[in-house]
Amino acid sequence: MSKILKLRSPADLIGMQGNGVISFGSGQPDLPPPKETFEGIDLTRDLRYGLIQGEVKLREALAREYAGSTAENFVITNGASEALDLIFRCWGKGQKVLMPRPYYYSYLPVVEMAGNVPVFTDLIDGRIEVEHFSKKICGCKAVLINSPSNPTGRVEAIETLKIIEKLTQKLGVYVVSDEVYKDLIYERENYHIQGDHVITVNSFSKTYCMCGVRVGYLWSADKKIVEDVCEMKTHTSMNTNLVGQDMALSAMKAPKVYIERQQQIWRERRDFIYDGLLKLGFDLWKPEGAFYVLPKCKNAREFLSLLCQEYKVITYLGEWFGAPDRLRLSYALDIKQIEEGLGRINDAMKEVKVL
Amino acid sequence: MSKILKLRSPADLIGMQGNGVISFGSGQPDLPPPKETFEGIDLTRDLRYGLIQGEVKLREALAREYAGSTAENFVITNGASEALDLIFRCWGKGQKVLMPRPYYYSYLPVVEMAGNVPVFTDLIDGRIEVEHFSKKICGCKAVLINSPSNPTGRVEAIETLKIIEKLTQKLGVYVVSDEVYKDLIYERENYHIQGDHVITVNSFSKTYCMCGVRVGYLWSADKKIVEDVCEMKTHTSMNTNLVGQDMALSAMKAPKVYIERQQQIWRERRDFIYDGLLKLGFDLWKPEGAFYVLPKCKNAREFLSLLCQEYKVITYLGEWFGAPDRLRLSYALDIKQIEEGLGRINDAMKEVKVL
Repeated sequence: MSKILKLRSPADLIGMQGNGVISFGSGQPDLPPPKETFEGIDLTRDLRYGLIQGEVKLREALAREYAGSTAENFVITNGASEALDLIFRCWGKGQKVLMPRPYYYSYLPVVEMAGNVPVFTDLIDGRIEVEHFSKKICGCKAVLINSPSNPTGRVEAIETLKIIEKLTQKLGVYVVSDEVYKDLIYERENYHIQGDHVITVNSFSKTYCMCGVRVGYLWSADKKIVEDVCEMKTHTSMNTNLVGQDMALSAMKAPKVYIERQQQIWRERRDFIYDGLLKLGFDLWKPEGAFYVLPKCKNAREFLSLLCQEYKVITYLGEWFGAPDRLRLSYALDIKQIEEGLGRINDAMKEVKVL
Repeated sequence: MSKILKLRSPADLIGMQGNGVISFGSGQPDLPPPKETFEGIDLTRDLRYGLIQGEVKLREALAREYAGSTAENFVITNGASEALDLIFRCWGKGQKVLMPRPYYYSYLPVVEMAGNVPVFTDLIDGRIEVEHFSKKICGCKAVLINSPSNPTGRVEAIETLKIIEKLTQKLGVYVVSDEVYKDLIYERENYHIQGDHVITVNSFSKTYCMCGVRVGYLWSADKKIVEDVCEMKTHTSMNTNLVGQDMALSAMKAPKVYIERQQQIWRERRDFIYDGLLKLGFDLWKPEGAFYVLPKCKNAREFLSLLCQEYKVITYLGEWFGAPDRLRLSYALDIKQIEEGLGRINDAMKEVKVL
C-alpha cells in the first residue's frame, strides 16, 4: 500500500520525473520550436543592456499582430509570469482582484505577494457565470481572466468576453487577460479583448514551444501602466534576455501553417484523452483550447500518491488550482504515452475509489 | 542658457544617447565578452522549462569557485537585480534593512517595494564606519553591503568585512553581500564573506561583459533561503533563460588572463579619470574597484542639465544614489572618450559654479 504524499505544489513532484514515468504534470509543449527560431541568431551581437521595455524590432513585430497598436504598447518580460507579477505589484497594496475559480496556480501567490486580495467567481460548467461575475466585481481594481484556461481547457464565448469588456469599461475596472494559449484554440480564432482598461498578457512559450527561453510580454493602451511596469522592471530584472528576444522575433517568421499543424496535433491528443477518460467513467469538461483536462476525482490526493508511487504516472492536484476533488492532467505527450498512461490509471482505479 | 532638467532617475536620460554624446552614465563594460562565451552553444538544445534553481552544470561550476559549496547553495537568476528582489520579498514585510549610504540606486526601491524599511549608515570617506554601523544594526533583519561599491568605487578593508561577518553572526542578522564587481578590484583579491547567515549576490554581467544576457545568481548556505527564493521564483519568472545560462557556463571557461587583462584596462582608465578630475579641482575618492567616481559637485542638477544639453555629456545625479551634491560618472569608456568628456566638463565648469 502506498502512503499519501504531503505535496504542497507541483514543485514537489519534480524529482519524480525520469525513466518509465508518464507525466501528465508539467504544462508545456513537448514539440520542438519552429526551425525559424534558430535562423539568423548572432550570439556575438551587442550584449550590453537592452531597453527595459524590450527590443524595438520585437515590439514592432508584435504591433503588427495587435490592430491599432505601436511598439509603445508592449513590454517584453521574462515570460508571462513576470508580466503578471509586475502588473499586480504596480497597483499598490490592498486592491481587490476578481478571478474565476479554478485558476492558474500562480495567480493566487502573485496577487497575494503583491499585497492584493483575491476575490473569486466560481466557474459553472467550466465557464464564467456572467451574473455572479457582475456581482463580485464591485469594489475590485481588476479582473484576471484566462481564456483558453489552464487548468480547465475551456474557452470563454466571445459574447461573454464582450460583456466583460463593456462591464469593466463602464465600472473603470482593469481587465488583465492572460492569453498565453491564444494560438491553441480548437474551435475558433482568439478574441482579443479591447479597451484602454485592458492589459493583455502573452508569451512565446506555448505558441512556439520555447518555455525555457522565457520571453513573454504585456500589451496595454494605458501609457501609465507601461511606464510603471518599466520603472519597476528597471529595479527587479532590467531588460529581458537579449538572445531570447532575438529568438522570439525569429520564431514569429514561422509560417502560419506551423501553428495550424500544432493545433491539429493538439486536437488529436485532446480527442484521445477526453474519450479515454470518459470511457474510464470520469466526469470532465471537454477542452476547447490549451492542453489540460480537469476530471472530477474522489480521494484525489490518495489517488495521485498511488499513481505516482506505484504506477509511475504524474498528475497534479486540482486543489492547487482551486479545484478540490479534481485532478489536472496535461496532455502534452504523444498519443502512445497518453494511451499507456490511461491504461495505468485504469489499473490504479481498482485500488482507490475515485468515481 | 540651458534649462534645469526635471530628471527622476537614470531612465530619463536614455533618450539622450547617440551621435557625439559622451556617456559617463550607464554602468556596464564597453568591452566584448570573452570568445569562450559563444563556443559550443547549441540553440537547438532542449528549450522546455529548466529547473527553477538553475541548470545543474552551471551551479556545479560555480560551486568550484566557492569553497565548501555544492550546486545546492546557488540559485541562478535574471541578473543580480532579480536575486536582490527575491531575497527581500522572501522575508515578509516590515523588516529593517541596514545599508551604507551612498548606495546602488535600485537598493531603495527593491527594499521598499518588498514592504521592508531601509535604515542607513553614512560612509565616512567612502567607507563603512564600524562604530556607527554597529549601533544602527540593532533590530535589523539584514544588512545589505556592496564592496566594491557602485557608486563610490570603494572597496571595504578585509578587516571591516570580518568585523561585519562576526557581528552579524552574533546578532543573528543576515548579510546580503552584493559582490557583482568582485573581479574588478584593483588592489587585492575579493574577500568572500563567510557564514550561514550570508547571502552573496553575484552576476556574470560585469566579469564577462554580458549585461544584456541577464544571468546572475545568489549563494547561500541557508537551505531555507534557497528554497524560499525558488518557491517565489516559480511564480514570478520560472527558470532563468536557458541559452543565457549556457553562455554563462561557457564564459567561465575563459582563462584567468582574460580577467587580468580587463583589470589592467580598468586600472588605466581609473587612473586617467581620477587624475583628470583632480586636476579640474574636484574633490573625490580614489576608486579601488568597479568603474565609478563620485565627485562632490555644487549645483549638481544644474551642471548635469548643462552638460547634457549643451555639451552632450551624460552624468548621473549623486542624489539618485543617496549622495546629494555629487555626480556619478562611470568610466566604462575608452581613454580617448574620457579625455574628450573631461575637456567638455572643463568648458562647462566656466558656466556653473561646481567647486
